[in-house]
Amino acid sequence: MPLEKSDLPFIRRLLDDAEYGTLALFDGETPYAVPVNFVRIGEEIFFHGRRSGRKMRAIQRHPLVSFSVVRSYSLIDSTFSSTEGIACPATQFFASVHLEGTASLVEERKEKAAIFEALMAKLQPAGGYRSFDDPAYDKALEKTAVVRIVPTKIDRKLKFGQKLPIERYERILKHLRQRGNPLDLETVRIMELLRKREV
Amino acid sequence: MPLEKSDLPFIRRLLDDAEYGTLALFDGETPYAVPVNFVRIGEEIFFHGRRSGRKMRAIQRHPLVSFSVVRSYSLIDSTFSSTEGIACPATQFFASVHLEGTASLVEERKEKAAIFEALMAKLQPAGGYRSFDDPAYDKALEKTAVVRIVPTKIDRKLKFGQKLPIERYERILKHLRQRGNPLDLETVRIMELLRKREV
Repeated sequence: MPLEKSDLPFIRRLLDDAEYGTLALFDGETPYAVPVNFVRIGEEIFFHGRRSGRKMRAIQRHPLVSFSVVRSYSLIDSTFSSTEGIACPATQFFASVHLEGTASLVEERKEKAAIFEALMAKLQPAGGYRSFDDPAYDKALEKTAVVRIVPTKIDRKLKFGQKLPIERYERILKHLRQRGNPLDLETVRIMELLRKREV
Repeated sequence: MPLEKSDLPFIRRLLDDAEYGTLALFDGETPYAVPVNFVRIGEEIFFHGRRSGRKMRAIQRHPLVSFSVVRSYSLIDSTFSSTEGIACPATQFFASVHLEGTASLVEERKEKAAIFEALMAKLQPAGGYRSFDDPAYDKALEKTAVVRIVPTKIDRKLKFGQKLPIERYERILKHLRQRGNPLDLETVRIMELLRKREV
């Protein structure tokens, strides 16, 4: 779906809540996907890795990459919406953000430090570590590759049955409430927001 | 790490427990990753999609693909193993299976039906749907693309600090037990199996 300005809060929240995202790279022969812990700053994505690792080699060869975050929700049994015993309606609901862009290395010590501060603030909010300005980090920062992705395209996708006829949508809601595990109830919450067009 | 025969049960279990995996494709310009519900049969991976969708177009252009399943475990605070306030040990533990291989379409009705039976048995074990032999599925099977990935390479990765010096490993175990959320306790369970070389 085409991105609207009103989608940005949703996208930012999904990215900021995610411990890791999936980086898709092409090494010249095979595309491959790899999970990375990351931080979003503005609409840019940052992650790090070994300077000589496979990721960095692939990025040098092919700087065009994708990055995505998927949050999977309830499995929807076919029986939740099919009344004739047809398996086809079986599916899984999910929310995702997918971006494409160009990856490049961040080399400046000060900028690398700021990125690690942001990454740590995201993943270890309780703190308990020295500031990255500390010279104790000089060597580690020097030998670690930090990558920035500048997106040229951002999409978000919500698959929560919102295009289904209302009776089927209601039937799914009813079954999810009945099954009622924590993920089902979270799925119901989003389906209700979608129905009120609040997401 | 090089794959050993003893890794196969681990790989199969991780694949069979996963509701979805991540497919990495190359469309001729940009690599991209997309989540798919799938089923493993033997060491092959099967998923389905729209015949005219982006996935199928990319596979036609570039049949070499990757497929991976990641199961993320505890975030490891730097304070769990660093005694000098250094942030670098902060990390996340995970288990993953990554395979590369060639994707091709399955066209025969009987084979497609068998794949959907296996997929439904995996994702909806309670049943409640008609067998795919039923002619009611003829049209749906005809218009749905089913893809087989034959792997040429399979890797598995366990990142649970198992290469750390034993004192740091023990310190992480202690902190995970203290924090003690359900994911931490599951992480501890795997760390203990790894220490006994039982996984």
